[in-house]
Amino acid sequence: MTSLEIVPLTGIGEVRPGDDLADLIIASPTVVESGDCLVVTQKVVSKAENRLVDIDPDDPLSHKPLVERESVRVLRRRGELVISETIHGFVCANAGVDLSNVERGQAALLPVDSDRSARGIRDRLAARAGLDVAVIVSDTFGRPWRRGVTDVAIGCAGIAAIVDLRGTTDSLGRELMVTEVAAVDEIAAAADLVMGKADGIAVAIVRGLPEAWFRASSVVDEIVRSPAEDLFR
Amino acid sequence: MTSLEIVPLTGIGEVRPGDDLADLIIASPTVVESGDCLVVTQKVVSKAENRLVDIDPDDPLSHKPLVERESVRVLRRRGELVISETIHGFVCANAGVDLSNVERGQAALLPVDSDRSARGIRDRLAARAGLDVAVIVSDTFGRPWRRGVTDVAIGCAGIAAIVDLRGTTDSLGRELMVTEVAAVDEIAAAADLVMGKADGIAVAIVRGLPEAWFRASSVVDEIVRSPAEDLFR
Repeated sequence: MTSLEIVPLTGIGEVRPGDDLADLIIASPTVVESGDCLVVTQKVVSKAENRLVDIDPDDPLSHKPLVERESVRVLRRRGELVISETIHGFVCANAGVDLSNVERGQAALLPVDSDRSARGIRDRLAARAGLDVAVIVSDTFGRPWRRGVTDVAIGCAGIAAIVDLRGTTDSLGRELMVTEVAAVDEIAAAADLVMGKADGIAVAIVRGLPEAWFRASSVVDEIVRSPAEDLFR
Repeated sequence: MTSLEIVPLTGIGEVRPGDDLADLIIASPTVVESGDCLVVTQKVVSKAENRLVDIDPDDPLSHKPLVERESVRVLRRRGELVISETIHGFVCANAGVDLSNVERGQAALLPVDSDRSARGIRDRLAARAGLDVAVIVSDTFGRPWRRGVTDVAIGCAGIAAIVDLRGTTDSLGRELMVTEVAAVDEIAAAADLVMGKADGIAVAIVRGLPEAWFRASSVVDEIVRSPAEDLFR
């Protein structure tokens, strides 16, 4: 294993509906290289894809009907907080409907198909700049049992969502009991360390990941646990 | 925000009960600098602290009584799998009792006080090498709703478990709604990217974290969610 570098991508600025994120990334003064993994926050993906909905800026509950509409199953309610499952299968607060870092009077919904969003950015970077990079779309989720939020992957392209260590042995030659690492979630968390929610950094580069991790993949197919195998749904 | 570097610390080798992890870290050919955050895996901490228990190597269930003993509350059982709460308040599989990367015929328990373990390493690095570093003890946990495991922090010293963005505004000047980032969990996840469960890398350096994050802290005090405020216990 060699070192990793995590680099904030500067110069993206405010993203507006219809903006091409690949063009904005190419125009950044921060240089992207083939072999990089780019982590792009959901917020700018949702803005570029115009997943913005007008809400009443004077009604603090006006986004609530959106939360219900974006939820396929509610797991818990407490006060204003709803923990629900989205159409993608993600379990998160308020079905991913978000009011921070959007204009007053608007709410941002999750991308319709966040794996497709990642593929689109990856494909356009290849077509326009000849770059062969992986792309992860990240979002900020809470967790049960542990306080604080962390960034996780909601979409990916060109990078293994799960790195499977089945069949490998540990350093003592025993077969590993823990086998499947959620690589895209660890990469999304790592990228968040250079973002700083308040700094307007919406993209980070993770440089130096193992070559073997670069393959076609999908967060929805590989990370989302089916309700049947889930002990907490 | 500037770039981060994540560096695997080489040369630790097999750790045995009574070994001093600070000495092993100082002796590594990988140079540690003041201002670094060291992430040390639970496995070598548990070995150094002799949290090893003999089990019958021919009985695949012989560690099960340990799991019951280390659990204060069982949340779910399915087949051999137990999801329980440990004395520390962590919710994880098999109460953290682990058979991988330990000798056949042994099981490793979690450190008794993983924050104290982190403080001990930090203090000894200061005393022996004049280093002012933060230390995180990490372990590999599963999650509900999402497949794959990720590394999280079970102990910390000299680094904020939670980075509180309350009172700050987002890039559009609105007050942030998501306020508390579990920084130590994101750092632990980032460090795991250079470890590779099979490679025997037990320590990683995360270099370049914001100065403001370096403060006295505790995973148990700041990250463990009390049952009363938890919706999934």
